[in-house]
Amino acid sequence: MSEFLDKLQGYADLIDEELEKLLPPRDNYQKVLYDAMRYSLLGGGKRVRPVLLLVSAELFGLDKETVMPFALALEMIHTYSLIHDDLPAMDNDDYRRGRLSCHRRFDEATAILAGDALLTYAFEVAGEGVAALTAKAFAKWDGEAVAAYQKILPLLAKRSGTEGMVGGQIIDLKAENNTIDEYEHDALCRMKTGCLITVPAEIAVLCAQKSGTEEGRLLTEYARAIGLAFQIKDDILDVEGDPALLGKNTGMDEADNKTTFVTLYGIDGAKTMLSDLTMRAVDNCLILKDTPGCSAENAEFLKDLARFLLERKY
Amino acid sequence: MSEFLDKLQGYADLIDEELEKLLPPRDNYQKVLYDAMRYSLLGGGKRVRPVLLLVSAELFGLDKETVMPFALALEMIHTYSLIHDDLPAMDNDDYRRGRLSCHRRFDEATAILAGDALLTYAFEVAGEGVAALTAKAFAKWDGEAVAAYQKILPLLAKRSGTEGMVGGQIIDLKAENNTIDEYEHDALCRMKTGCLITVPAEIAVLCAQKSGTEEGRLLTEYARAIGLAFQIKDDILDVEGDPALLGKNTGMDEADNKTTFVTLYGIDGAKTMLSDLTMRAVDNCLILKDTPGCSAENAEFLKDLARFLLERKY
Repeated sequence: MSEFLDKLQGYADLIDEELEKLLPPRDNYQKVLYDAMRYSLLGGGKRVRPVLLLVSAELFGLDKETVMPFALALEMIHTYSLIHDDLPAMDNDDYRRGRLSCHRRFDEATAILAGDALLTYAFEVAGEGVAALTAKAFAKWDGEAVAAYQKILPLLAKRSGTEGMVGGQIIDLKAENNTIDEYEHDALCRMKTGCLITVPAEIAVLCAQKSGTEEGRLLTEYARAIGLAFQIKDDILDVEGDPALLGKNTGMDEADNKTTFVTLYGIDGAKTMLSDLTMRAVDNCLILKDTPGCSAENAEFLKDLARFLLERKY
Repeated sequence: MSEFLDKLQGYADLIDEELEKLLPPRDNYQKVLYDAMRYSLLGGGKRVRPVLLLVSAELFGLDKETVMPFALALEMIHTYSLIHDDLPAMDNDDYRRGRLSCHRRFDEATAILAGDALLTYAFEVAGEGVAALTAKAFAKWDGEAVAAYQKILPLLAKRSGTEGMVGGQIIDLKAENNTIDEYEHDALCRMKTGCLITVPAEIAVLCAQKSGTEEGRLLTEYARAIGLAFQIKDDILDVEGDPALLGKNTGMDEADNKTTFVTLYGIDGAKTMLSDLTMRAVDNCLILKDTPGCSAENAEFLKDLARFLLERKY
């Protein structure tokens, strides 16, 4: 596992470097806005979504640079969603990743705008990424590649919007102080957490033109499984986790009377679901490892990532 | 002027119809989110930005359909900015366009998410628009058109972000209860209001492949002038306007100790700037009217639009 952890850290460090380059500090009239964006974006985090995209791309033989703009955009979208989620009108969290949340470190108005700005910048960066790939494909007169690249941005937006992450957030609000049934809870998780963990795989599939292939399906299913597992683990950590390691308080869901995997299926039921999903994800990696044209090394890494997310303490 | 008003209404009605088609009511788990988005998006408004884009496209001989996705995206971005701007932590406005603001009609959390969702959906719609145009240009093996279309989305994001509209918002926050000098105030206006009124012209120039042409420059300068004029007029209306016609209270800037064109240059100075800018805009329209390849009818409409914005009571 320590080789895996070193590699994971290497990917995360690369993402951090690229984010730093993308959003350097500024000393203009909008300084405080840049400061707030940087505070939240560069404030640590596991970088699961961008790492998943880089590794998925490499699995299909692409280099990291091809998908880097989308990896960075994803992390910005994830960060904006955390900033807005922490606001007093939403989850009202004072801490995030062991530091003050954006609206507590700055103020509410600045936090709202920093979130808006990160979301907007994500699409600027992704749009430039699409433009660069499209120009290359056009030069090779590769119509299929052009068509695939043109799907990236609308897909990224869809997974982040009303039928994706934001849609999940609104159901999540309802789930506080309201009992929701398992169907609505399932929709909540697939949208709120699942969509942004699945979309890296979907973008890698588009970039590698693997739509409709078995390996594309296996990777997407893998991502969907770990996306759901991720949420189950979060719910379990909120009951059994160590606040010091998590960098936030536990027992929040119970205090909010929230419907979670634990309230729906009990702590043991949730743990069983978590290990079943992880096993399914691992199985897909084992098949991918033996699939011609897929990198065995990267399939192995994805397998370890699924296990790492299962066992994580934060 | 009544012919112009009929035509303006016709364009606005078309935008309303298209927005209604784009965002029909839904009866799913996210119903309240769709309701809030629709409440703000379909709640009236002059539709200045999308109309400007449609007319600019027609000026260069394009049909409305070519730019429609970007026109709708622009109105969604504008609407999201109003929803977030009205929030208690920002301008704390209870009314907008003569109706309750989004967070008062729904609640704060729903308003934050409705804004986020509209911004995200704007990029989904714009991304699909770029994809459709790119596919057509690729079929014609038109590399210049492909390259121009690929610039639309990053530009739209840039004008909406830290160096555009959101950047203007953060300076605007500072301008309340802080005296800002005329340079910072100028930056504020060009970013906060100006960028989203200039970008329709810039998108039309890209779609018509008029970058670097004199008519492209004239149209963009026109839009920049009316964008600034728009903000000056807003500041004047806040002093002299009729709250019943405006659908909101006047005297808000003074109450907030805000630096405006009126506080910087006096009411007469502001009025002189407003008419100077309008004259420059009108002059550009007169040249465009006589430019071969430009539609005289649409140049005339743009001229009337500049005058209409000068004289508007709301």
